Amino acid sequence: MNTFGHLFRVTTFGESHGGAVGVVIDGCPAGLPLDVKDFRFDLDRRRTGQSHLTSARKEPDEVEMLSGVFQGKTIGSPVTLLVRNQDARPEDYERLKDRYRPSHADFTYEKKYGIRNWQGGGRASARETTARVMAGVVAKKILRQVCGAEVLAYVQQVHDIVAGVDPDKVTLKQVESNPVRCPDKRAAKEMEELIMSIRKQGDTVGGIVECVCRKVPVGLGDPIFDKIKATLAHAMMSLPATMGVEFGSGFGCLGMKGSEHNDVFVAQGKRIVTKTNNSGGQQGGITNGMPLVFRTVFKPVATIFQEQDTVDSKGKNVKLLMPGRHDPCVVPRAVVIVEAMAAIVLVDHLLRQRTVKIK
Amino acid sequence: MNTFGHLFRVTTFGESHGGAVGVVIDGCPAGLPLDVKDFRFDLDRRRTGQSHLTSARKEPDEVEMLSGVFQGKTIGSPVTLLVRNQDARPEDYERLKDRYRPSHADFTYEKKYGIRNWQGGGRASARETTARVMAGVVAKKILRQVCGAEVLAYVQQVHDIVAGVDPDKVTLKQVESNPVRCPDKRAAKEMEELIMSIRKQGDTVGGIVECVCRKVPVGLGDPIFDKIKATLAHAMMSLPATMGVEFGSGFGCLGMKGSEHNDVFVAQGKRIVTKTNNSGGQQGGITNGMPLVFRTVFKPVATIFQEQDTVDSKGKNVKLLMPGRHDPCVVPRAVVIVEAMAAIVLVDHLLRQRTVKIK
Amino acid sequence: MNTFGHLFRVTTFGESHGGAVGVVIDGCPAGLPLDVKDFRFDLDRRRTGQSHLTSARKEPDEVEMLSGVFQGKTIGSPVTLLVRNQDARPEDYERLKDRYRPSHADFTYEKKYGIRNWQGGGRASARETTARVMAGVVAKKILRQVCGAEVLAYVQQVHDIVAGVDPDKVTLKQVESNPVRCPDKRAAKEMEELIMSIRKQGDTVGGIVECVCRKVPVGLGDPIFDKIKATLAHAMMSLPATMGVEFGSGFGCLGMKGSEHNDVFVAQGKRIVTKTNNSGGQQGGITNGMPLVFRTVFKPVATIFQEQDTVDSKGKNVKLLMPGRHDPCVVPRAVVIVEAMAAIVLVDHLLRQRTVKIK
Amino acid sequence: MNTFGHLFRVTTFGESHGGAVGVVIDGCPAGLPLDVKDFRFDLDRRRTGQSHLTSARKEPDEVEMLSGVFQGKTIGSPVTLLVRNQDARPEDYERLKDRYRPSHADFTYEKKYGIRNWQGGGRASARETTARVMAGVVAKKILRQVCGAEVLAYVQQVHDIVAGVDPDKVTLKQVESNPVRCPDKRAAKEMEELIMSIRKQGDTVGGIVECVCRKVPVGLGDPIFDKIKATLAHAMMSLPATMGVEFGSGFGCLGMKGSEHNDVFVAQGKRIVTKTNNSGGQQGGITNGMPLVFRTVFKPVATIFQEQDTVDSKGKNVKLLMPGRHDPCVVPRAVVIVEAMAAIVLVDHLLRQRTVKIK
Repeated sequence: MNTFGHLFRVTTFGESHGGAVGVVIDGCPAGLPLDVKDFRFDLDRRRTGQSHLTSARKEPDEVEMLSGVFQGKTIGSPVTLLVRNQDARPEDYERLKDRYRPSHADFTYEKKYGIRNWQGGGRASARETTARVMAGVVAKKILRQVCGAEVLAYVQQVHDIVAGVDPDKVTLKQVESNPVRCPDKRAAKEMEELIMSIRKQGDTVGGIVECVCRKVPVGLGDPIFDKIKATLAHAMMSLPATMGVEFGSGFGCLGMKGSEHNDVFVAQGKRIVTKTNNSGGQQGGITNGMPLVFRTVFKPVATIFQEQDTVDSKGKNVKLLMPGRHDPCVVPRAVVIVEAMAAIVLVDHLLRQRTVKIK
Repeated sequence: MNTFGHLFRVTTFGESHGGAVGVVIDGCPAGLPLDVKDFRFDLDRRRTGQSHLTSARKEPDEVEMLSGVFQGKTIGSPVTLLVRNQDARPEDYERLKDRYRPSHADFTYEKKYGIRNWQGGGRASARETTARVMAGVVAKKILRQVCGAEVLAYVQQVHDIVAGVDPDKVTLKQVESNPVRCPDKRAAKEMEELIMSIRKQGDTVGGIVECVCRKVPVGLGDPIFDKIKATLAHAMMSLPATMGVEFGSGFGCLGMKGSEHNDVFVAQGKRIVTKTNNSGGQQGGITNGMPLVFRTVFKPVATIFQEQDTVDSKGKNVKLLMPGRHDPCVVPRAVVIVEAMAAIVLVDHLLRQRTVKIK
Repeated sequence: MNTFGHLFRVTTFGESHGGAVGVVIDGCPAGLPLDVKDFRFDLDRRRTGQSHLTSARKEPDEVEMLSGVFQGKTIGSPVTLLVRNQDARPEDYERLKDRYRPSHADFTYEKKYGIRNWQGGGRASARETTARVMAGVVAKKILRQVCGAEVLAYVQQVHDIVAGVDPDKVTLKQVESNPVRCPDKRAAKEMEELIMSIRKQGDTVGGIVECVCRKVPVGLGDPIFDKIKATLAHAMMSLPATMGVEFGSGFGCLGMKGSEHNDVFVAQGKRIVTKTNNSGGQQGGITNGMPLVFRTVFKPVATIFQEQDTVDSKGKNVKLLMPGRHDPCVVPRAVVIVEAMAAIVLVDHLLRQRTVKIK
Repeated sequence: MNTFGHLFRVTTFGESHGGAVGVVIDGCPAGLPLDVKDFRFDLDRRRTGQSHLTSARKEPDEVEMLSGVFQGKTIGSPVTLLVRNQDARPEDYERLKDRYRPSHADFTYEKKYGIRNWQGGGRASARETTARVMAGVVAKKILRQVCGAEVLAYVQQVHDIVAGVDPDKVTLKQVESNPVRCPDKRAAKEMEELIMSIRKQGDTVGGIVECVCRKVPVGLGDPIFDKIKATLAHAMMSLPATMGVEFGSGFGCLGMKGSEHNDVFVAQGKRIVTKTNNSGGQQGGITNGMPLVFRTVFKPVATIFQEQDTVDSKGKNVKLLMPGRHDPCVVPRAVVIVEAMAAIVLVDHLLRQRTVKIK
């Protein structure tokens, strides 16, 4: 099940080492202008080593477009994109191949498949999200061209530092104005300092990515199982290191009574809007035209640079010091993955809209 | 898209009024003993009017089993179950048919389908969850018989009253010992009082349902998109009134560093377990044999008994007083729906386990 | 896998005895007028005992509509239809319960599920096609209302008697003018005599049902795997007793060279048509606006009234004389099932048409 | 919808010119030895220019394996394989870009997508089948290793020359002993002469590929919609140029009565077999352990080297002479594509077998 979506179907492939990671996008409408340069901005945002906050990974990701585009435009057939893996350092991982890294997928994958791909986490590596980012670029472009909808994510919390951001007004420029990708400048500064200090400790911290989708058409989402909040939750929780997701008022709804929480409808010219947006842009699982707002929490990632206890595949107690690049806080990079998955979900729902009309 | 699951496929049908609500369960293994009596306990738990906390709904739900069972056992063909709707009071709703109830699905459904089914919420009504509860009964039975796994949900918070419950030890008997379905007796008492007082105000409050799945086999869940946490999140957010979901440490992970949050492996005889369970029973999206633990937050439901502002379908400002039964806090009943969806997800993953072995 | 279709999803349930057979239709557009009376004509056509050619089955099929319709119109939610089973005669089958009927599914089902549902063939019984016929009625209605397309099937061959029918001009009235449902009157007469004589022998014969779909929009069908000819073939071969299917020139293409077989395009006013229709209305798996024409062959059904050799579940050689109604030639009734499945396929493809346009 | 299969999911991508054609195989069990050399034999069989019967295409297909294999074995993640396109001759096609080639997909694709990919047929080109052949190699390997099943196809008819082949005994060696891939030597000789003569005329002829699957486990196939004969028919009719498919006795069943056609069960030691195999190895859509036998008819392909009438995109009558390689009879190459699709279907059904047992 490496495919996501019903009509806009994104299939990712590739492990962290050897070969390539890539994506087949099936269901992309014909006529969309598409060029390898379109992927540069988001791939750079996802990459480690883009700022002083993370360890360097040298290579840039060069995109190859293998299919689906003719004379600069999509033709309705599958769009295939890939990025080669160049950074294989098997020796770093070889000495770990019998030890289960705490809170990593080594143990569960080995139990499931009977095989251990010990090179850098294999399929469970965050490297896979490169493929999602490429699909996200295509999805965001479709949204922009078809209905002007915009998907924007940013860091809303790092460890215990909470930013104040207005999801109705925040801009990409504000998000990109600092390496933490937090539009609240003061909080961003504090977050940056915290991350630098955590980095020195060889430790990690978690955070919250908030995402807002604006100008989303009314009526996206299916009743019952594929509510927009359900498919978005699925998408978010399919990302590595996510621990939870909340929409609109989220867990904060517990502080309100129904009479306070209900979003009262008001007429605004010909449009019907709601006075508040506690529902986060949807009701009954279907978009209501208000901004979709949701938050995803990422744990402090498991790759730390301190010695830890664990067991090996024979069940013996051993010590372990992990290889790999050190990313003390993943949320500044996670912003682009959240955007990608949100856009993929929205396009899938956009394509599901029934246009067959009974006369 | 009224179907959920890939190999254990649950299709629900039916609106709140007229005809019936029901479910077709496709993929149920052959040989499972099944009787209409099996559904009584959970259907009663879901029903309104079971305690003094909610308004009465008179009829019990009588299950008809239409297919899939021969001589008391499933035969591998679709199991179809239905419950008739007997409680039609169209007149209550008719005067509402042009007014959008705040935070209900009236507006979004009408925009999506061009038609308003104004009788009691139609397909968006919580009545649909009756169908899920029936599928959940079958799923829980499969889990019990195939691998002894147990799914148990309970109220962990109502408004601002938080219970203390140990997910490793809580029992169904404790959950069912009070009408709030909260195993912490003292908190349960307070919750009950709060709900009675909110009821008098014609208002509503939200809450959190925690769910634990114990004795789940190692290896359930797919890498990448159908991680166990992703499909469970999808399932939870497909329930009416849910605003968020969190796994293991959830949003609380923000209080920890990686070195504190990592679940260290320890050998326990021949089994490998983890010292802590911050990951909530899964790593890399695949179960690790520890209890699966997650929490779902339900908003204060939108049906309140106070006059509210809204607009009608012509965009005119109007007042509105809602009909319907009053349920001041939905979480005591939501417990059984959470269990049902969790069990459905687990059975689907159980069936997905590859048993084709390369020799 | 009791579901067919990607966007127009038809799930059938029910065995031949006990309970009911029915169908959940998911993806039916909102606004379609629908009444239980709509199903009468096609259900009667499918039923045994409608003419002197088959043994009587007493009960008519009474349709219950359980969901999806409000005030006489579909509302976009699943439409559920069912028909009760009234004709249980377990004793007829009980003495067979350890014997495998030749060319029936008894043996394969028992091997697959480890259970034998010996009552009248269970899920493998032709009774299941009642559910498909109901879905077909809805599908044909959608086609008529949305694009004026028409699906018409008729008997083209019985045993060695071949009819001459012009698929471009044949009408429903001609098809229904005789009990064989063959629009070629002379052939129909011969077929009728043959069937009566075969009936007396307690034997059966096969035949071919030809189906034509006219006024089908250009562009239905997906490239590669879901070509219109592929999904139609899937649909036809999912019917009981089918042995093959051919499109356009079919196996007859072997008598032509490419220069003879190619369908030359000609301009007909503003429309582009083809001079011949050897391709059967599609090219590259996508409809070209010409009539879709295909033929499905049904074997002489396996239920004969002569003593046969077989083995029982212990592997012992035994004799067998089958119970059940005798239908010496199934094709006159199969006509309506072919129409149903063809219409279901066409609606599914109609809904798949992409309407999201890149600006 | 460029994906085929439910648990063994094959997604193909790529057009005839530019970039690459490839396949992502999702659901491949872990532990299968796999090497790029494994693909050589079947890719060569599919390629044009392998014998004097077709025009030369120079390049061999070099396979790149991008993912899913670690240390020579599959690891349970998607296996991605691709072959670069090297043979771009846009100028050959450019002058055709406004003319619809008779019986090609130019017209239908343009109507469907609003765009014409005029380079060599784009996605509709037979080049796409290269991707299927690669997936077929993997599928055949799985079948061999898991259950010893064997899939073998061969030419059974070319134009009016019919071969006599015993599907129970035919071997790969016999099939590969001549360029026509017909195990009946005498017929093969005649076919070869016919094809050479047709080639000189710049014309084409069709033929029948018969396929036999031996040692297939009992119980593969789902009741109702995904009968083994239905999914195989879907697979065959998804191939370019196919006009029909038949199983077992096929259209020939019309020459028999039920009493002659029924396959009588006989005990053969502990095994239960059938005396005849008119059912073609399945009953009720489920394999019965006898050889699966089916035939697929391929039309005389549309690319002929004679001037033809057609219309251009403005509806004007024009003449047309096609570019491209000339393949006077496609069936000798189609053999390997039939095998590939059959193997893919069988593996998908193999993985669907339920192994969850109710205790």
